[in-house]
Amino acid sequence: MKASKAETPAVLIELDIVERNLQRAQQMADGISLSLRPHIKTHKLPRFAQRQIELGARGITCQKLGEAEVMADAGLDDIFVSYNILGASKLKRLKALHDRIQIAVAADNNTVIDGYSAAFTDSNHKLSVLVEIDTGGGRCGVQSAKKAVKLAKRIKASEGLSFGGIMTYPPRGEISDVNASLSRAKAALLDAGLKVKCVSNGGTPDLRFAGDVTLATEHRCGTYIYNDRMQVSYGHCEISDCALSVLATVISCPAEGRAVIDAGTKALAADFCDAPGYGHVLEYPDALVQKLYEEHGVLDFSACESMPEVGDKIRIIPNHVCVVSNLFDSVHLVRNGLIEETVAVAARGCLV
Amino acid sequence: MKASKAETPAVLIELDIVERNLQRAQQMADGISLSLRPHIKTHKLPRFAQRQIELGARGITCQKLGEAEVMADAGLDDIFVSYNILGASKLKRLKALHDRIQIAVAADNNTVIDGYSAAFTDSNHKLSVLVEIDTGGGRCGVQSAKKAVKLAKRIKASEGLSFGGIMTYPPRGEISDVNASLSRAKAALLDAGLKVKCVSNGGTPDLRFAGDVTLATEHRCGTYIYNDRMQVSYGHCEISDCALSVLATVISCPAEGRAVIDAGTKALAADFCDAPGYGHVLEYPDALVQKLYEEHGVLDFSACESMPEVGDKIRIIPNHVCVVSNLFDSVHLVRNGLIEETVAVAARGCLV
Repeated sequence: MKASKAETPAVLIELDIVERNLQRAQQMADGISLSLRPHIKTHKLPRFAQRQIELGARGITCQKLGEAEVMADAGLDDIFVSYNILGASKLKRLKALHDRIQIAVAADNNTVIDGYSAAFTDSNHKLSVLVEIDTGGGRCGVQSAKKAVKLAKRIKASEGLSFGGIMTYPPRGEISDVNASLSRAKAALLDAGLKVKCVSNGGTPDLRFAGDVTLATEHRCGTYIYNDRMQVSYGHCEISDCALSVLATVISCPAEGRAVIDAGTKALAADFCDAPGYGHVLEYPDALVQKLYEEHGVLDFSACESMPEVGDKIRIIPNHVCVVSNLFDSVHLVRNGLIEETVAVAARGCLV
Repeated sequence: MKASKAETPAVLIELDIVERNLQRAQQMADGISLSLRPHIKTHKLPRFAQRQIELGARGITCQKLGEAEVMADAGLDDIFVSYNILGASKLKRLKALHDRIQIAVAADNNTVIDGYSAAFTDSNHKLSVLVEIDTGGGRCGVQSAKKAVKLAKRIKASEGLSFGGIMTYPPRGEISDVNASLSRAKAALLDAGLKVKCVSNGGTPDLRFAGDVTLATEHRCGTYIYNDRMQVSYGHCEISDCALSVLATVISCPAEGRAVIDAGTKALAADFCDAPGYGHVLEYPDALVQKLYEEHGVLDFSACESMPEVGDKIRIIPNHVCVVSNLFDSVHLVRNGLIEETVAVAARGCLV
């Protein structure tokens, strides 16, 4: 079926662009001997995770246990859950995963480490725990090299655990700060007699500068598979590198220059980016996706030479793809304008 | 089970607050002889739609056909789809619904009306079509009374259709403009010899002023069942009237005054409101939900006298509940701190 015939709103994924984005990143990483560990939060599709591995990724990254369970069920066997996992039920699920596949987790505090240890005390192989370092991102992570050493020592001394290295979710555009923080942490860990097997950096925005983070042994990137308007605004890619679009139908042209489409925040999400509006209209690059309601998108075509009519379909590159994937039960895989396959977003809604 | 023991992130719905919100609105409407036609986009749960009817609502409103199908399957038999429905496949589904239950739809242009007529020409009972009026909201709707008359005449003259009246999605706080637009449209329609059976107004923000829209015969409101931080900022309700909260776990307290929770935009959504941040923390009213990543929420407790520890759970009233309901496969129904039942969000993800 022609992609343009899909019921709207729908997600279209251009397979050729996906493949190009994956290959380009893997080649870049291979060229600087950096391992990739792609984050599947963006696509949530086992097939793309498998393709990332085939192309050379050393494993995958998940943010939630539910995502890791879906991926493990599909045969992915080396997963880093880059998250502090807490609570009896989640630790039990983590242990069940660890019994089946190679899994590692993050920690940035004692409570989390002690939870891991209590759950893995009687495990026949140790759980690898990486210490998260805040390199300026202001999210999770220890604030000093000294604290990193304390946690690494605690991990090493804990039954059932092994110290797997350090990780960070870096601030965008602050390579030298990231380098400095990681260097201080690594040096302090080595001084303390701890081996740092892995230094895991992340993010798509600075993927092209990944080689400048000289200590990193692996890079976790997610959005690069599809790209989006936010990544374009960051300079990571061009609009032509965006693989995912939302197909929408114009349902009304109520006033001059205004058209309303059947996609709102429940399809495009309310995320902002540096560019104005809520998305880029492929057929009308000068159109502004001005306002989103839940099920309506209001577009301003006053800067365009023409505008669509009621019943026309248009494609919108969203500001942030990762949240859009999570809003759709299924997506259409497209090549040369045709839908090759429609697949369920296997890890959609894996919040827990 | 205690609600506080739920796996996080989770949606908790306080049943007593739901019931109070529903009763309060229905009593207000009864007092001014206004029919309510609640919008189910907020809760997407057949049981609450049924309760709205039991309390006296004349029917329900859906925005998407998929929602209407779920509700019809659950026995709801009077549904207004307040949307321009377009395209062969959707019109076929609309006809199938119309064969089972009482259904009405909206239109604000010829293309949509002609589509309805083509699909319903051979129907044994007519499809009721309401003309949408833009009363200043700037979304869908005709821009003049003259255009409303033209469309109403077209509907009346179209095979398979009947003119059901007029509807609007009003701008907030502009009661006199809404009244003026509706008056002009109704007067012009009556002048043209058209009967205006229904004048459908909508929205929760101005629900308390619904009686001031004197021409309205029914009011479509959605958010009032749960309420949210946006409605608090609009003056519709207090925080104590908010029935839905997101339960989250503190996974990290990496720096002074900063805590990170396991709920980000995939649980709380990125919607803004007039109040700062992304939600209201029930246990720490002075905390700021400062930044949301997809799976992390970063909270600033510097204005609070104390802050939670890693492993503690907190409840957050989101800025906008309607998009939060749509992110969770199931929600917990809570009374007196206990989960009475966990139910699937039946119409979640009904985008088409």
